[in-house]
Amino acid sequence: MTDSQLQTTETKAEIKSRLERLETLYDLSLDIFAAKNLDDLLRVVMSRVTSALGADRSTLFIVNQDAEILWSKVAQGTEPIILPMGVGLAGMVAASGETLNIPDAYLDDRFNSEIDKKTGYHTKTILCMPVKDREGNVVAVIQAINKIGGAFSEDDEDFLRALSAQIQLAIENSTLYQGLKELFESMIEALASTIDARHPTTAGHTNRVRNYSLEIAKEMGYSPADLEILNYAALLHDYGKIGVPEAILTKPGKLTDVEYEAMKRHANYTIEILSRIKFPKQYREIPNIAGHHHEKMDGSGYPDGLSGDNLHPLSRVMAVADVFDAMTSFREYRNPANPDKVLEMLKADSGTAFDGDAVDAFERYYHKSNLGDLIRDRNDEEKAALELARAETG
Amino acid sequence: MTDSQLQTTETKAEIKSRLERLETLYDLSLDIFAAKNLDDLLRVVMSRVTSALGADRSTLFIVNQDAEILWSKVAQGTEPIILPMGVGLAGMVAASGETLNIPDAYLDDRFNSEIDKKTGYHTKTILCMPVKDREGNVVAVIQAINKIGGAFSEDDEDFLRALSAQIQLAIENSTLYQGLKELFESMIEALASTIDARHPTTAGHTNRVRNYSLEIAKEMGYSPADLEILNYAALLHDYGKIGVPEAILTKPGKLTDVEYEAMKRHANYTIEILSRIKFPKQYREIPNIAGHHHEKMDGSGYPDGLSGDNLHPLSRVMAVADVFDAMTSFREYRNPANPDKVLEMLKADSGTAFDGDAVDAFERYYHKSNLGDLIRDRNDEEKAALELARAETG
Repeated sequence: MTDSQLQTTETKAEIKSRLERLETLYDLSLDIFAAKNLDDLLRVVMSRVTSALGADRSTLFIVNQDAEILWSKVAQGTEPIILPMGVGLAGMVAASGETLNIPDAYLDDRFNSEIDKKTGYHTKTILCMPVKDREGNVVAVIQAINKIGGAFSEDDEDFLRALSAQIQLAIENSTLYQGLKELFESMIEALASTIDARHPTTAGHTNRVRNYSLEIAKEMGYSPADLEILNYAALLHDYGKIGVPEAILTKPGKLTDVEYEAMKRHANYTIEILSRIKFPKQYREIPNIAGHHHEKMDGSGYPDGLSGDNLHPLSRVMAVADVFDAMTSFREYRNPANPDKVLEMLKADSGTAFDGDAVDAFERYYHKSNLGDLIRDRNDEEKAALELARAETG
Repeated sequence: MTDSQLQTTETKAEIKSRLERLETLYDLSLDIFAAKNLDDLLRVVMSRVTSALGADRSTLFIVNQDAEILWSKVAQGTEPIILPMGVGLAGMVAASGETLNIPDAYLDDRFNSEIDKKTGYHTKTILCMPVKDREGNVVAVIQAINKIGGAFSEDDEDFLRALSAQIQLAIENSTLYQGLKELFESMIEALASTIDARHPTTAGHTNRVRNYSLEIAKEMGYSPADLEILNYAALLHDYGKIGVPEAILTKPGKLTDVEYEAMKRHANYTIEILSRIKFPKQYREIPNIAGHHHEKMDGSGYPDGLSGDNLHPLSRVMAVADVFDAMTSFREYRNPANPDKVLEMLKADSGTAFDGDAVDAFERYYHKSNLGDLIRDRNDEEKAALELARAETG
């Protein structure tokens, strides 16, 4: 818009309408900023779309290019639907990447009146526009229906185009977060699984320590953010075993002093290796939390001999979980201990070796979940399997 | 703005000014969408800020909370500067998170006239505003100087606030990308380093295969995007060795047939483990590329016996790099071969075992970089170090 256009050809009403729309865009940028999550944001955005266009209702479809479908993320006044690419007007727009502006749906061959017949709604005008990412791929489709007082105009298209740029940004942000999280979690799980792969006797240890740790922390009232950190740290706590020779890791007998020192070094290796990972800010403590699962409250643990408050609270949680699982599981050189006895041992060392609150929380979880019986059953099964294997190999 | 405000209190000039600003915001949303990178975007944004506010110049500072500094990312008409948190007006805004609107700089104690003295510029009015992320942390500071015809108004502040929400979004997007990349790369490097840690004789192998592969691919004219994929695949190509017993990996002699079969399985493990990682779309081929570095063009390789076009072109590049480094390096059971001889062997098998284009590209790189001499020197040094170590341990 140039000055002369504004001065000569626009009526006050036109200026007002233009102002309102620009203000919608303005408000939208604040919405995006303030939104706690993508779902909330898109709902707000779509209600702004409907009112700014003067439409009766609007739908936002998210396109899944891999699965070749689109699904209604925000559907005003209709049931959620899933469309194959190319099917329905929104599906056509998703496939072609071209905007459809239909002044009379029932005069247009591409319109399918089935849904109207089912719902009793009468579709008249439709504006259906793709939302594209930076590479030009269609990531979503906006569909507005039944403009009050006529067909959708070119101005409406321009407005929706500007809006769609903002929607794209919000979707991109959210997708990036999601992708980051999935990549990160799957890499950590791949790492964790390689630890168990090297030492079959302790397979399942990593996962059980993770589960026990999370249960203790939940009992203690830790926040979801802390539980997330603990989850990753627990999955990685034994990763340093990668640096311990297999002959020591799987020795079918008691370790010599020299071997035990080599075994203990796995905690240092965990810290060393994980410290090389450039964790985002909120996960920066993971290397320390993970590597300090053998520290004791009285400073008698390893690798750093930290005590009390110098020990990260989540390490103290893991220390309880780790020792409990180690003692209640099979090893090359001994049978598992009775879980009830191990719980008693933890309680006896509560406040000296172990964090008292963590032991209390574990005890509550232990009784609540009937953990002793579950472990006894698991170990009976494992014993039977071991005996069967021994009998078969002669 | 309500209807009644518009109708009763605003002059046409006021409406026009408001319209122009809203259109700036509108244009900005399209800028963000179209921008190829953050630097370009922020430059465009800041020139829009200056003109929409009617200021003489503006500066955008990026805040580094960890380092407690801010630095001018976009500086109009001035040299780039770095400020400690709390120093200078922008530094104060970064520290306090509060907007400063100063109608006369020389009457304000907080203003430091040193820079004016140096540059001969005369600062009069200043509007300095924080850009905050969702958690309320200051991530940037916008500073506009010398509004034409008076002090910055509350309307100017409102406008800049709306703009800052958009700038924050753009920064957040860019930071996320950057963080994702760093996390991903550092995790892959941490993974790669654990392979070498387990098998000291082949330490350095992973990194050399990565370097040779990249040099070959550059000679062949691969795109930066392909080089990135190859870089990651090469770093991870031997990760499956995690599943091969150390006794076999480090055996100081020729492997038996059974042991060799177990050793070959590392290629399967590489594919299996990496397939569990939820790579973003552009990296989805990494598990296959990495795991097929022992495949041969004639189908005689492992683990899948793929041949010719069924083999990913980047796997063919790695096959050349991998075998060249293995043969020119020390092993427990043999000395390294002469690199010139290994090159001749590669050429003899070019088109049958190895991809002809990859071998040609490697030969060009080999001569250009004088690789034969470099490897002979490295191996001489390594031999001397080995002999010294043997002499010392008796």
